[in-house]
Amino acid sequence: MTAVDFTHFVDELATISGSAILPFFRTHLAAQDKNAGGAFDPVTEADKAAEAAMRHLIKRTFPAHGIIGEEYGAEQPDAEYVWVLDPIDGTKSFICGLPMWGTLIGLTRNGIPCHGMMHQPFTGERFSGDGKRTLWRGNGSQRTLRTRDCPGLDQATVMTTSPLLMSEENRERFRRVEAKARLSRYGGDCYSYCMLAAGFVDLVIETNLQPYDIVAIIPIVEGAGGIVTAWDGGPAHKGGSVIASGSRAVHEAAMALLAG
Amino acid sequence: MTAVDFTHFVDELATISGSAILPFFRTHLAAQDKNAGGAFDPVTEADKAAEAAMRHLIKRTFPAHGIIGEEYGAEQPDAEYVWVLDPIDGTKSFICGLPMWGTLIGLTRNGIPCHGMMHQPFTGERFSGDGKRTLWRGNGSQRTLRTRDCPGLDQATVMTTSPLLMSEENRERFRRVEAKARLSRYGGDCYSYCMLAAGFVDLVIETNLQPYDIVAIIPIVEGAGGIVTAWDGGPAHKGGSVIASGSRAVHEAAMALLAG
Repeated sequence: MTAVDFTHFVDELATISGSAILPFFRTHLAAQDKNAGGAFDPVTEADKAAEAAMRHLIKRTFPAHGIIGEEYGAEQPDAEYVWVLDPIDGTKSFICGLPMWGTLIGLTRNGIPCHGMMHQPFTGERFSGDGKRTLWRGNGSQRTLRTRDCPGLDQATVMTTSPLLMSEENRERFRRVEAKARLSRYGGDCYSYCMLAAGFVDLVIETNLQPYDIVAIIPIVEGAGGIVTAWDGGPAHKGGSVIASGSRAVHEAAMALLAG
Repeated sequence: MTAVDFTHFVDELATISGSAILPFFRTHLAAQDKNAGGAFDPVTEADKAAEAAMRHLIKRTFPAHGIIGEEYGAEQPDAEYVWVLDPIDGTKSFICGLPMWGTLIGLTRNGIPCHGMMHQPFTGERFSGDGKRTLWRGNGSQRTLRTRDCPGLDQATVMTTSPLLMSEENRERFRRVEAKARLSRYGGDCYSYCMLAAGFVDLVIETNLQPYDIVAIIPIVEGAGGIVTAWDGGPAHKGGSVIASGSRAVHEAAMALLAG
């Protein structure tokens, strides 16, 4: 069975989700607290509106496909094709007014990520990959992305969304990598992985990811020549502790420190 | 003597600096190391080209004015009007390909900040203030900015560029504030202060600032109704340890914890 080309459809999903989200960006929305009494986890109306719009379009166009989304859970998760959606990855950046968030649209076929898009509607950027090729589009132009072949950790730039999101033990492990790296930078969410695909960042290390945080990212990073695995080297698409690297040398050096 | 209106001229400076910088954004420039053997402090050709272009325009238009810039030092720093320039505030974000940097163009009159602009040429945003009014412009539209009247620290969003930039003692003090705040976010540089002016962030706390990191910021934050001081409550325009808040209540609560 030949793989279907979903490129155009993914663009449609990005367009409708962007239209749903942008009117809410930098407006003073009251953020709901998803974990009542727990950690601060803002959910905006934008998040829900965008996911609802994408789900509607998917169901209308491909009724046999499954959907897993951050806001509305799983439908037909065992279908051949399953869409894995995070309408606003980086909700904390979003509520701070920062452009460091994006809409993640991933597609798995028989459980394996085969297509991913990160759409940043405020900057008008689209990063998309199918594991073989990754494209950046923005401002009416486009570019094929390649990761940087960073020779070693001492030359590497490492990003994580925030060390505060890690358990104490994992934070210690992350600190070991950070201490050897040339530069570290926080606060990226999905944008960090896209900058890794673009060759400006060499390592992204995170924990406690959900599948919808990472499924769309994998074909983007791999299509640009990068590597995404769990901290132990296993597959990353189930989420958890994830490490993405632009080069094999950096990936191995960082994994050794995370494990050691 | 009436104050001159420099609004149009500041826009011109922003335009020429943006034109000098943008061709270098997301290209693989070799970053020079300013502190040979010291901490990683990337300087790009973009930084130098933009400051040179702004200096040239200032000298040609206002030969009696002074200039203090990050890249090329001070000229006539005791003049009535002194321009205080940081062509790329957030060089680390810049080299990571992230849009969280900006060009800071400040103007002091008799030593006091009277005009400030933060220009983000990639997103096409301009934040400008004169201490009485602050404007955001982008995408052909504009908006007057006001800080949020956050009632207390437990409701506040706090930002800092990175706790790693602080001394251990200051980091401990910062952690006290962070522990009481609702949400903390890293990695903003000048963008954080602009989001404070826009009412999405309540506190920005930083250390080791240079005058060119903060002079342009002060009229932007104050023009939106916010407060910028040193950690001890003194004036902030000389740099050092700086705290900016959107409301008096949050400013006082945070200052007490930073001092305590």
